[in-house]
Amino acid sequence: MMEITLQSPLDMHIHFRQDEMLKVVAPLSAQHFAGGVIMPNLLPPVDNLDRLHWYTSEVQQACVGHTFDPYMTLFFRDYTAQDLELAKPHIIGIKLYPAGATTNSDGGVQEIMSMAHVFDAMQELDIPLLVHGETHGFVMDREDEFCEVYRALATRWPRLRITMEHITTQKAVGLLDEFENLRATVTPHHLIITLDDLAGGMLQPHLFCKPIAKRPEDRDALLQAALSAHPKLMLGSDSAPHPRDKKECPGCAAGVFTAPIILPMLAELFERHNALANLQAFVSDNAQRLYKLTPPAKTITLSKTAMMIPELYGSVVPMWAGRELSWSVTAIS
Amino acid sequence: MMEITLQSPLDMHIHFRQDEMLKVVAPLSAQHFAGGVIMPNLLPPVDNLDRLHWYTSEVQQACVGHTFDPYMTLFFRDYTAQDLELAKPHIIGIKLYPAGATTNSDGGVQEIMSMAHVFDAMQELDIPLLVHGETHGFVMDREDEFCEVYRALATRWPRLRITMEHITTQKAVGLLDEFENLRATVTPHHLIITLDDLAGGMLQPHLFCKPIAKRPEDRDALLQAALSAHPKLMLGSDSAPHPRDKKECPGCAAGVFTAPIILPMLAELFERHNALANLQAFVSDNAQRLYKLTPPAKTITLSKTAMMIPELYGSVVPMWAGRELSWSVTAIS
Repeated sequence: MMEITLQSPLDMHIHFRQDEMLKVVAPLSAQHFAGGVIMPNLLPPVDNLDRLHWYTSEVQQACVGHTFDPYMTLFFRDYTAQDLELAKPHIIGIKLYPAGATTNSDGGVQEIMSMAHVFDAMQELDIPLLVHGETHGFVMDREDEFCEVYRALATRWPRLRITMEHITTQKAVGLLDEFENLRATVTPHHLIITLDDLAGGMLQPHLFCKPIAKRPEDRDALLQAALSAHPKLMLGSDSAPHPRDKKECPGCAAGVFTAPIILPMLAELFERHNALANLQAFVSDNAQRLYKLTPPAKTITLSKTAMMIPELYGSVVPMWAGRELSWSVTAIS
Repeated sequence: MMEITLQSPLDMHIHFRQDEMLKVVAPLSAQHFAGGVIMPNLLPPVDNLDRLHWYTSEVQQACVGHTFDPYMTLFFRDYTAQDLELAKPHIIGIKLYPAGATTNSDGGVQEIMSMAHVFDAMQELDIPLLVHGETHGFVMDREDEFCEVYRALATRWPRLRITMEHITTQKAVGLLDEFENLRATVTPHHLIITLDDLAGGMLQPHLFCKPIAKRPEDRDALLQAALSAHPKLMLGSDSAPHPRDKKECPGCAAGVFTAPIILPMLAELFERHNALANLQAFVSDNAQRLYKLTPPAKTITLSKTAMMIPELYGSVVPMWAGRELSWSVTAIS
């Protein structure tokens, strides 16, 4: 039987939420991963040290019994240098949302360049900047338009490590080779789907996310970069749970829930493209190097053994509910 | 109070469905319009004379009590010249669906140019061809790609009157001025929304239709043509009811239901752009001239009096359910 073992896989972009949802979804990531970057867009956001400590403790409790390091983030706002110095030991980076760009981002930044003093301080302290990179333009153009902001940030703060989160376009992939200090995460679903999967046949609310899936040539560029283990591209699932009744309704919330199926999906995808040898770099080694991380030792074995994707995890419908994947996780140690 | 009277408005593209749905939706069109083009994509399709007579009778019964001429269509297939000659007195045209392009179109045409003999016969008999113009390409490109098929049809059959149904792109608008025998319908919603309204904020299943709403520059070109009463552009609402449980679910059906609000929506839109004087041409005169129709006399008065759009008509959620429109129909005679 075909098998692959992955050492300490890391999910560099996860939404754990809080309360009951946290209890449902956190263990599903914590079982398959050795660590993950936890997003701070709660209501209200995680944007001060007290709230960070509270949320860290909530996340740790939800992951009890698993070998899993939660890498915490703060929600970007007008922090002082002192705020940042105090926060630094407790976070992996600070997540910037343009106001209104996605779920719970209404408190995000209105004018990014007015925050130069914060970027100055982050650069001095070597705190990474994680960015949801979308303008408020037409939905298919938002990330391409935001590439100018990435250019401006990367040029003005050349020592600031900037992660373009969940990139979805050919243009963003191109930036990786243009600026030393830009790196990116990409989701498994954006390696696979395009707008056609969301809206080309029937409309599929469980494939609706922000940024929206783009054109075939965008998907192909992302996939090529992932399959070739581009050294600046990391897995970041953006797994984003919403209760079913917030998805199958008018005003469907943005987010695709993949946490429990990420590694089987990726094994299937990389095998299909004869790229299994590059999966380890994509799911862990690149992130370790780029973020200078030493995650806990954890070995995940995947085998070419079919799994049926459940219809629901708690109240959450996962991506591809009811479909079969040809790979599954068969051992964790 | 601001008022406008419309003489014999016509909806040149409607889905009436059958059975219970027909009874709910047909009167909603029949009350505000003097006539309409009834689509044949039932299951099975209306593609023979027996079924056409049955469906005509069903539609007439559903419209009893209203002054309304249903202009019937046949579902395009490999008809003989004799079939067409027999059908001609009973239809306004024949509707061509590329196989699989939209709701109940699986029996549509696989290879359009293999049907040259049918187009020959239709041209000789002067039977209009109505076309759902989408390829099977990427969802945002399908109509633009299909424009090559429109060019080929219009060039090879210069006397065949061809209606590009529910156009959604700048490119299709351009074809109107390039080929004498091409004309088009456009929906009210495609004059207003873009993909941003469907998927730029929360996902809105009740704005999901085929062809999908396109880019702002496409919407602007359509709107400009409608507001200026382009002589080859007609109102065709493509009002397409689906029960709520087929819309608010995974695999949401394509179709926007507008029948009862079309005229108020258009009055509001044309007034906002100071184009009320052109509304009569768009909603009736162009269609009468292009199709050589003499619809029954019917006067619809709209006033600038607010209406609240209901949450449901039967089991169907209309476009903009629960919102207010600033115009309403205040007299019918």
